[in-house]
Amino acid sequence: MSTVKYYLPEDRIPKAWYNIQADLPKPLAPPLHPGTHQPIGPDDLAPIFPMALIMQEVSTEREIEIPTPVRDVYRQWRPSPLFRARRLEKALDTPARIYYKYEGVSPAGSHKPNTSVPQAYYNKQEGVKRLTTETGAGQWGSALSMACAFFGLECKVFMVKVSYQQKPYRRGLIEAYGAEVIASPSTETQAGRAILAENPNSTGSLGIAISEAVEAAAQDPEAKYSLGSVLNHVLMHQTVIGLETMEQFTMADDYPDVIVGCTGGGSNFAGLAFPFIGCNLRGEANVRIVAVEPSACPSLTKGRFTYDFGDTGHLTPLVKMHTLGSTFVPPGFHAGGLRYHGMGPLVSHLLDLGQIEATAYDQLETFAAGVQFTQAEGIIPAPEANHAVAGAIKEALRCKEEGKSEAILFNLSGHGHFDMQAYIDYHAGVLEAYEYPEEEVAMALAGLPSLG
Amino acid sequence: MSTVKYYLPEDRIPKAWYNIQADLPKPLAPPLHPGTHQPIGPDDLAPIFPMALIMQEVSTEREIEIPTPVRDVYRQWRPSPLFRARRLEKALDTPARIYYKYEGVSPAGSHKPNTSVPQAYYNKQEGVKRLTTETGAGQWGSALSMACAFFGLECKVFMVKVSYQQKPYRRGLIEAYGAEVIASPSTETQAGRAILAENPNSTGSLGIAISEAVEAAAQDPEAKYSLGSVLNHVLMHQTVIGLETMEQFTMADDYPDVIVGCTGGGSNFAGLAFPFIGCNLRGEANVRIVAVEPSACPSLTKGRFTYDFGDTGHLTPLVKMHTLGSTFVPPGFHAGGLRYHGMGPLVSHLLDLGQIEATAYDQLETFAAGVQFTQAEGIIPAPEANHAVAGAIKEALRCKEEGKSEAILFNLSGHGHFDMQAYIDYHAGVLEAYEYPEEEVAMALAGLPSLG
Repeated sequence: MSTVKYYLPEDRIPKAWYNIQADLPKPLAPPLHPGTHQPIGPDDLAPIFPMALIMQEVSTEREIEIPTPVRDVYRQWRPSPLFRARRLEKALDTPARIYYKYEGVSPAGSHKPNTSVPQAYYNKQEGVKRLTTETGAGQWGSALSMACAFFGLECKVFMVKVSYQQKPYRRGLIEAYGAEVIASPSTETQAGRAILAENPNSTGSLGIAISEAVEAAAQDPEAKYSLGSVLNHVLMHQTVIGLETMEQFTMADDYPDVIVGCTGGGSNFAGLAFPFIGCNLRGEANVRIVAVEPSACPSLTKGRFTYDFGDTGHLTPLVKMHTLGSTFVPPGFHAGGLRYHGMGPLVSHLLDLGQIEATAYDQLETFAAGVQFTQAEGIIPAPEANHAVAGAIKEALRCKEEGKSEAILFNLSGHGHFDMQAYIDYHAGVLEAYEYPEEEVAMALAGLPSLG
Repeated sequence: MSTVKYYLPEDRIPKAWYNIQADLPKPLAPPLHPGTHQPIGPDDLAPIFPMALIMQEVSTEREIEIPTPVRDVYRQWRPSPLFRARRLEKALDTPARIYYKYEGVSPAGSHKPNTSVPQAYYNKQEGVKRLTTETGAGQWGSALSMACAFFGLECKVFMVKVSYQQKPYRRGLIEAYGAEVIASPSTETQAGRAILAENPNSTGSLGIAISEAVEAAAQDPEAKYSLGSVLNHVLMHQTVIGLETMEQFTMADDYPDVIVGCTGGGSNFAGLAFPFIGCNLRGEANVRIVAVEPSACPSLTKGRFTYDFGDTGHLTPLVKMHTLGSTFVPPGFHAGGLRYHGMGPLVSHLLDLGQIEATAYDQLETFAAGVQFTQAEGIIPAPEANHAVAGAIKEALRCKEEGKSEAILFNLSGHGHFDMQAYIDYHAGVLEAYEYPEEEVAMALAGLPSLG
């Protein structure tokens, strides 16, 4: 019984990204200026993003061409493989057909280089010398520092302090790529100093680190800022995942009945699902789409769909999204990439339109699923990806109960090689489940601006 | 400037391994019984190995068929990619063409599953219930435990104590595959207890861990022993690497002028080089072959070519090899997979025949090379593989000096995701160089049996 690989030749790397904004039955609510609360235009974003990315952010063209130098870098690891998990199917004794798209084949080990490479490319094209960014668990920081090394840009990464301390290995990788890593909150920015003045022992959060990185870019005329998820153009860059997967399903002579992805800011989920949701929206298919989030940071299942800031320091524009409140600091579970108070506006909008479902799992359930997957398939998933694994296994067991042979597809967005402490803790029985922090969320939501 | 990938479709996974014993101008010296010092036969090995592997060990057939269930597992990650390192070439400003075969794409992250999978398969075929083995840095332990999980075998891994303590992440992976991990020397075996009686603080060595694993297998009628390098059949299983590479060079319309690999027991080196050495031996080609070893454990460049034991407890047969003495305990450098007192008999024999060259680098040189490679190519190499990177860079700089455009091929045998502490130490300037421990080697060599 063997895992089956569906491999595309490299000339089948997509030539264009898919922009779901072309197919939305109702457009996105516009982002608002953090000071005036009025809709912002491209010029408002110019201090922190290159114009090419700003134009992608607001485009409603269905296809946006992938520049040749970006495809040239992609082909080091793309097209990524699609696998049929026959050994996992056997272990679960399910009639379901389980497929996973594996993005851990990138040198940085996750789907993140799909967007870090074009972001570095466009910035380089527009004469930028250095990029600033934030990182939680470190997947994004390593992906951006790698892309900067390839294109000859400097890179400064504000790393959430608790991850900086607890995940020295990811930090080591970012440093090996030649980037500078700063524990956030830091004394380098006004935003960081303000947090430290209030709480010198702050362990940081993605929201705080974003404030620091944005401020650092805005103050340096040779620098721009780069974000690894949430924004429309970032999610669009990830659609190479789903576009390849469609071709691979054609090779397999199959089509997914249900698609599962984990959601933090939404980028790996969108990357796999958006091309399929596009087919749904155009009436060409009818696939169930399931987002899986941590029950300790459940923006889609428990958050409010409203305008909120992307960061804790309230330097970013306001966007309409599912949010737990921009001052909410999620508990310290291992899936650092999912520890974000909000959700990408496009993913939020699609949930609001009824195009996707959302569900939440606690940390222990996701690691139980991840270990079962590892023993069947050999690949040890990142803690973030374990949420997708848990969701896929749940669907496979439902199929078993209902006697249905459905095709289940999920995104194995990255490997867990830099997150082994979590597996060691799980093995030792000391991993925590983490409940939903209801009171903290209520308090953070109470502080939101009322912009509906 | 982009890395170029040469990808073979999965129907081009080799159907047979290449057995270099068929092409040797002079046969290997026979292994000797550890007690009688007489040549051993297959029956002497039957308590610890399945008969299929014993017959491969002594075979002189040029091709040995790869069983279909083994190829079925291989195709999850094979054929592995061959890359042309154009960005590294540019960084070095060399006229050389640098190629690397990347074995880190296996789920366990190194070339080791190429042999752990067939070893688990043949043992399962012959009714074995569990396998015992040793591991240093943990690449082999994780590869065998993964293969055992796939074929439904139990697995017990004796892990060198210093690695058990310093590399908890690799141990975590082995445990995630469901195997039992024991710090060696342990109280579970007579060999382990003897070492501990002499030195309760022993940090262990591969030689000691082999003794323990062999003893544990010999005493359990349902168990056999499995080794990750050194032996003829193990090196042969790795030849899928070189056989694929030959096809990929045909795709690239090129042929290597020099091949570089790192050597501990010899398995990844042999895997890439043996099919090419076979062409050299048959007069069809004339490629330089360079083995790179750590200067702190330099069996090929400083060892004696003589009969010695494979283990410290002297339970294994005596084999003729380049050795630093079976009681020699190498210093604690990070390339744990190269911390072995001896060298595979086939690699040793080929050096003696003048078919290969050998060279040694200290730890700091190899990490400098590894970091340069990481920033150019994105993939962070295992400390073992950094030796091959250093060797390839040296050849590329020679080409630059000589104005020659040679094709340099090396084996990037695994990634460094579980070895990041070494990179962190390198970055912090606290990584040691490690000199050649001349006195310790002289002492160990003085204790060797005189069987020449």
